[in-house]
Formats: sequence, C-alpha cells, structure tokens
Amino acid sequence: MLTTEQEVNMKKLASMIRGIKVAMLTTQGRDGVLHSRPMATQDVELDRILWFFTAAHSDKADEIRQHPRVNVSYVSAQDHFYVSLAGRAEIVRDREKMAELWSPAHRAWFPKGLDDPDLALLRVEVESAEHWDMLSSAMVRLVEL
Amino acid sequence: MLTTEQEVNMKKLASMIRGIKVAMLTTQGRDGVLHSRPMATQDVELDRILWFFTAAHSDKADEIRQHPRVNVSYVSAQDHFYVSLAGRAEIVRDREKMAELWSPAHRAWFPKGLDDPDLALLRVEVESAEHWDMLSSAMVRLVEL
Ligand SMILES: Cc1cc2nc3c(=O)[nH]c(=O)nc-3n(C[C@H](O)[C@H](O)[C@H](O)COP(=O)(O)O)c2cc1C
Repeated sequence: MLTTEQEVNMKKLASMIRGIKVAMLTTQGRDGVLHSRPMATQDVELDRILWFFTAAHSDKADEIRQHPRVNVSYVSAQDHFYVSLAGRAEIVRDREKMAELWSPAHRAWFPKGLDDPDLALLRVEVESAEHWDMLSSAMVRLVEL
Repeated sequence: MLTTEQEVNMKKLASMIRGIKVAMLTTQGRDGVLHSRPMATQDVELDRILWFFTAAHSDKADEIRQHPRVNVSYVSAQDHFYVSLAGRAEIVRDREKMAELWSPAHRAWFPKGLDDPDLALLRVEVESAEHWDMLSSAMVRLVEL
C-alpha cells in the first residue's frame, strides 16, 4: 500500500511519462556489463508496476533472471524532462494480463501476436524514482516511494 | 587501435549521436540497484572515449569507483533512434582536458566553472555499442568494437 503522499507523487510522475512511447530498459549482464535497449511502454495506470512485452527467450530475460534489478528511463528531450525508475523485474507468462495489455502496435516486435508461444511480460516493480525537469525551478526531485 | 571497419562503425555512430545534447548515464549502486541520470554530452570527436563533467564528490562518482561498468544511452525519439554504449568509467581530474572541454553551457551544473575545486571529468571507455534505427532496414545493428 502506498501512502497518500506517495500516491500523489506517483500520479504526477505517471502523467508526465504518459506521452513517452519508448523507455530504455537497462539490465546487468555477465561481468557486471550494463546493457540498455528501447522498449515500448504501455498506456496504463501507473501504480508502481510497469509492464513490457518481451520474448521469454531473450538476452534481457536471461539477464533479469540472473539480476532482477533493472533501471527504466524515460527521456523527453524537447520537454527537457528525464525520469529514472529503479526496480525489480521478473518475466511472467500471464495470458490474461497479456490479452489486457495487447495492442496492434506490438506487432512490430511480435508479429505472431498473442499466439506467439514465446511471448511473455516483463513486470517491473518500481522501488525508487527520480526525475529531472529542467523547466521547473527544482532541477532534481526525488519521488520517495 | 581500432580496425578500419571499427573506425567506420564508430564514425557513423558518432555522426548520429552528435545532435543529442543529453545522454542517460546508468551506474550500479549498492545492492545492485541501477541508477540513471541525464548528463550533458560533449561536442567532440568520438573515438571510443566519452567525456562528461561531474562533481568528484557525488553519488555517481562513488558508484563508479565501486563498479566502473556503466551504460550510456542516447535517445532521439523524433528520429526513432536509440543507442546503448557499454563501457568502463573512471573519475579523472585532468585540468588540461577540462579546459579543453569546458563551455559556458556547463555553468548550469557547475556555476563556479573551471575554478570549482570539486569539478572533475568522467571518462568512459566504450567497450560495446548497439543502435536501433527504425528508418534503416535493420532494426538492430551491433557495432563491434
Ligand atoms: C522503438 C522500439 C521499441 C521496442 N519495443 C520492444 C518491446 O516492447 N519488447 C521487446 O522485447 N523488444 C522491443 N524492442 C527491441 C529491443 O530493443 C531489443 O532489440 C530486443 O528486445 C532484444 O533485446 P535483448 O537481446 O536485450 O533481449 C524495441 C525496439 C525499438 C527500436
């Protein structure tokens, strides 16, 4: 359960990242090497859980099984707006959730759609959030969760 | 020394990221938590080494001393262009290099300028690079370094 203040913070952040269609997901690979890659974001209520579609057999899924701690960053350069979310990720195969989140835009990455046996979800539980909003007076604000 | 092919790859990547003024730098903190933050990029020839200004006493500097492996990502959403660079970082206090790289734009973060005794450079040696370029036929291309 979030406190009221945490809920307000999270809602504010959610409204700011709503328009950002692609996030960068960073995972830790072998020897501590950090990899990032673009991932399509979901247009859902942000309640501390982020969802992404992924292949169950992929480098990122392997890296997450080894090191569940990930970072998800959102950049909106024209708004001078940057967000960093740190959290714990896991690969889940929840058919119902996949059907709920699916949209035709995901065909770009998963042409077989919901029938793809390798389709899975990446569930990220956000543990801390920071954002930089160059247009506001405060350069850095930490959203305590 | 880079091979001719690596040099060509690196030059191409450099020309693509030239216009991106802010990168996201991801470091590994305590307990494997991954943090990212926006960092102003330098407008210099990219020759496998990236430079950023930083405070020598800062969370990121501490994290880098513990875990030198970092990721630097460049996002240009309107061009559908994404780059991930993995490398090794170190904090250096090279006065000559600082004078060479300094520009008035850095005053936003370091108002005392080159006289700031805590001013330092973050030097990242790029070990591998990947980019996603939706406009070219290949979605993902790995630049082997
Ligand atoms: C704009 C954009 C959006 C992407 N969205 C996703 C996505 O939602 N899910 C996914 O698995 N890959 C997505 N990709 C591809 C990933 O960036 C990556 O190349 C792929 O998932 C393999 O990554 P891995 O080898 O680290 O597992 C996207 C790529 C781009 C350029």
